[in-house]
Amino acid sequence: MVMAEWAVLLENEGRVHVVEVIDEVAKHKGLGVINTGALLKDIEIGEEVLIGQKYLTRIPPRLPELIAGMARRAQTISAKDAGAFITRLGIGEGDTVLDAGLGSGGLSLHLARVLGANGHLVTVEPREEHAKVGLLNLERASACFPGFPEHTHLSGMVENAVLDVEFDAIILDLPEHKPAIMACATKLATGGRLACYAPTTSQLENCWIACEEAGLEVEWAGELMEREWGRTSKGGVRPVNGPFGHTAFLLFAKRC
Amino acid sequence: MVMAEWAVLLENEGRVHVVEVIDEVAKHKGLGVINTGALLKDIEIGEEVLIGQKYLTRIPPRLPELIAGMARRAQTISAKDAGAFITRLGIGEGDTVLDAGLGSGGLSLHLARVLGANGHLVTVEPREEHAKVGLLNLERASACFPGFPEHTHLSGMVENAVLDVEFDAIILDLPEHKPAIMACATKLATGGRLACYAPTTSQLENCWIACEEAGLEVEWAGELMEREWGRTSKGGVRPVNGPFGHTAFLLFAKRC
Amino acid sequence: MVMAEWAVLLENEGRVHVVEVIDEVAKHKGLGVINTGALLKDIEIGEEVLIGQKYLTRIPPRLPELIAGMARRAQTISAKDAGAFITRLGIGEGDTVLDAGLGSGGLSLHLARVLGANGHLVTVEPREEHAKVGLLNLERASACFPGFPEHTHLSGMVENAVLDVEFDAIILDLPEHKPAIMACATKLATGGRLACYAPTTSQLENCWIACEEAGLEVEWAGELMEREWGRTSKGGVRPVNGPFGHTAFLLFAKRC
Amino acid sequence: MVMAEWAVLLENEGRVHVVEVIDEVAKHKGLGVINTGALLKDIEIGEEVLIGQKYLTRIPPRLPELIAGMARRAQTISAKDAGAFITRLGIGEGDTVLDAGLGSGGLSLHLARVLGANGHLVTVEPREEHAKVGLLNLERASACFPGFPEHTHLSGMVENAVLDVEFDAIILDLPEHKPAIMACATKLATGGRLACYAPTTSQLENCWIACEEAGLEVEWAGELMEREWGRTSKGGVRPVNGPFGHTAFLLFAKRC
Repeated sequence: MVMAEWAVLLENEGRVHVVEVIDEVAKHKGLGVINTGALLKDIEIGEEVLIGQKYLTRIPPRLPELIAGMARRAQTISAKDAGAFITRLGIGEGDTVLDAGLGSGGLSLHLARVLGANGHLVTVEPREEHAKVGLLNLERASACFPGFPEHTHLSGMVENAVLDVEFDAIILDLPEHKPAIMACATKLATGGRLACYAPTTSQLENCWIACEEAGLEVEWAGELMEREWGRTSKGGVRPVNGPFGHTAFLLFAKRC
Repeated sequence: MVMAEWAVLLENEGRVHVVEVIDEVAKHKGLGVINTGALLKDIEIGEEVLIGQKYLTRIPPRLPELIAGMARRAQTISAKDAGAFITRLGIGEGDTVLDAGLGSGGLSLHLARVLGANGHLVTVEPREEHAKVGLLNLERASACFPGFPEHTHLSGMVENAVLDVEFDAIILDLPEHKPAIMACATKLATGGRLACYAPTTSQLENCWIACEEAGLEVEWAGELMEREWGRTSKGGVRPVNGPFGHTAFLLFAKRC
Repeated sequence: MVMAEWAVLLENEGRVHVVEVIDEVAKHKGLGVINTGALLKDIEIGEEVLIGQKYLTRIPPRLPELIAGMARRAQTISAKDAGAFITRLGIGEGDTVLDAGLGSGGLSLHLARVLGANGHLVTVEPREEHAKVGLLNLERASACFPGFPEHTHLSGMVENAVLDVEFDAIILDLPEHKPAIMACATKLATGGRLACYAPTTSQLENCWIACEEAGLEVEWAGELMEREWGRTSKGGVRPVNGPFGHTAFLLFAKRC
Repeated sequence: MVMAEWAVLLENEGRVHVVEVIDEVAKHKGLGVINTGALLKDIEIGEEVLIGQKYLTRIPPRLPELIAGMARRAQTISAKDAGAFITRLGIGEGDTVLDAGLGSGGLSLHLARVLGANGHLVTVEPREEHAKVGLLNLERASACFPGFPEHTHLSGMVENAVLDVEFDAIILDLPEHKPAIMACATKLATGGRLACYAPTTSQLENCWIACEEAGLEVEWAGELMEREWGRTSKGGVRPVNGPFGHTAFLLFAKRC
């Protein structure tokens, strides 16, 4: 199978498009019905291309651009929380990691990037309509990243998905965590860690209790609040009057 | 050269020791004068060893344990900020990254873990007494991680450290950022990003201005506040009455 | 002079109107051209009245309703910051307090409510178009509150406004605080306190320096962040995805 | 009855003592066995007095000083939350307010200050040992404030404390809010408001449900986070590395 080629195009106003480069006339969401193969054939990174009425710049297909131009359906885990998962779980090159549910795949993009070509990413998702979007985003990443991990995708609920591997890290973003925690905990390597992403505080508490029941040791629970700052016209900086950057509560537990 | 072996030992109360395994009687900080080679020869992961009056458990030498047992001199960048650097800069396997100043090496440990065996980590540090500590922590990590990047260390100030490589990402944690920003900006790959770690808001503002002068585009500036939550004896969760988890302001800029 | 009567009317969707009750046909913003005297003559608190196509409920004219239905021009100080000013400055019944600049009068409404009939509120505002709005809001409050303080309004800059009174508390919300701090500090009673409201951190720093130059002792500086929580449809509570409730930095200094 | 006189004395290091001025030798906590009547007879505000080995300055007995020098037993509601109660409930001169439980009386001091001589403060406290401390603090305040409200104290649980008055505002800081909410809601004036102080999020949720069951309309629920900022030795300001200023969740509901 020939892997598709993807290009990242930037509008002047900052909007990012990730488009398949294919030599036929086809519909590309947000850009119209065009032949991207013909249009982009001679466009190098840094050069502009006219599509419809807009000039777009072709830019390098790095992770932040793929995130900015992601296909989206479900709400996705933000960079701040993805970063905390990576550093507090100690995820890196060559690890085997479980990401459930996949959703739109935002977290999996971050994980794939740091797992690299020697890693193994296992994703689980019960809802087909979400899996479709998440897998598309991962397909793009596998074509753009310098290295991409082995990827196993399982349809269904985590507690039913049998997979005989040992995980270095497990991340659960689910409506109900308990059954998944009970099913997953034994698949963690010694010293491996499991994290939960819980929108409400009662979910956080339930995760905590389930982890202890499953024999895991809760290391830390809490939240990261992100606040943007901006410059003012007269000099000086101040918090931007934007949204409070909370998304969910995080819990980290370890298998001793 | 034979690479030293390191073991991670956990006290009951949670304190982590990272000790060199060497077959001679020597002083090990916090453990006394012992022969770790003899003591740990037959101790597997998960088993206990008696050292002095204390039983310690040998545990896997994962990143979080190396961070918990780090040699420390300078204050180090926390997991939340290290995570944001990794995800917002899009750092992953095989990248070339500059970390200045090295300090105690906390951030470099996180970077080395995600760069993996194909990456290149460049560290710079003007103060010898800090470099010594940071390099010791990196030496431990290189012995414990499944893969470790090529590592180049430069003594001195960033602006004087000449290195003819192209960086995917640059992270600056310095008392004065401007000279380093001016010197580094041209060494970023197209689409590469530079981040600053600024304890005060006036440093943040100066970084912002310097990045724009250096032709970089500021993407985001702000802070991550970490708040721990705990369970109460009567059920329910509440914020822990601990420190406000702020450490510094972060700024991200891109080379277009 | 006969004091005007004001009524507070509540729309179903929560919008609050504060209208003058006057027996003539006149334009009332948001309600149209109506005779409020005739319409509201027999409408008791808790009863509905039909105005245009809308049924509105007449509700008691308490402080929160007057704030919700305020005439607005300048951005106003929020309840969280007004509350901190009152409690940290120890403002209460019978005090003499300076509020500069008046702006739309949001803070002055809060101050007038706690000063009561024996207090003295001094307001200063250099911009006529703001003063007009702020004074209208205070006029409404004086008609609705059970007691209202003596009120002295001065046009112009604080540093030029000569008033020979001793203040229990002074609150400065100004583009440039220093001249006002230097001019006001000597008018504080022994043990009295001055507070500044500073949108940027450099303004906060300048206030700090000016207070010390003026011989005041800075007691506390910082910020209050307000975060709303809501219930979810499946039970449990979580932070509402609304704005980060920051407005400005606060500084409190004392005359010893 | 002759009301006792109280003096406020400030140590160099900032510690505040509130002492009864009485012409007999008696033990004063933190100061030793002394005759405060004799010692303070000729000491004016602003003058120093030698007590034991320490020079102390007599300062005006304002609210912030009484709070700083409070007798303490139970943890008390902080200035930020007391301020929010006052402004969001619209409490001011002449109101009738219920504060339950009294605890050490920190909130009641703030309430008494803004209610003034025409107000009515009702406090309830089931634990005698707390009531003793809270009532002592209120006794001091009644001697020091320019005006003090009528004060009714009831021993026992709110739901059992029968009092035939109509409240402008009710504030509940209790281990279990529901019975109190059900008992109190009908005693609110039309348009009056009730607030709850809830340390955990499950208590917050229970308050919310109970208020709705009691026919009140929840206006706002959330938290105030206080963060102190400080100056650095090299210039610039940054968040102080102190505790995250959270104490509890607040809920405000209205009787329509």
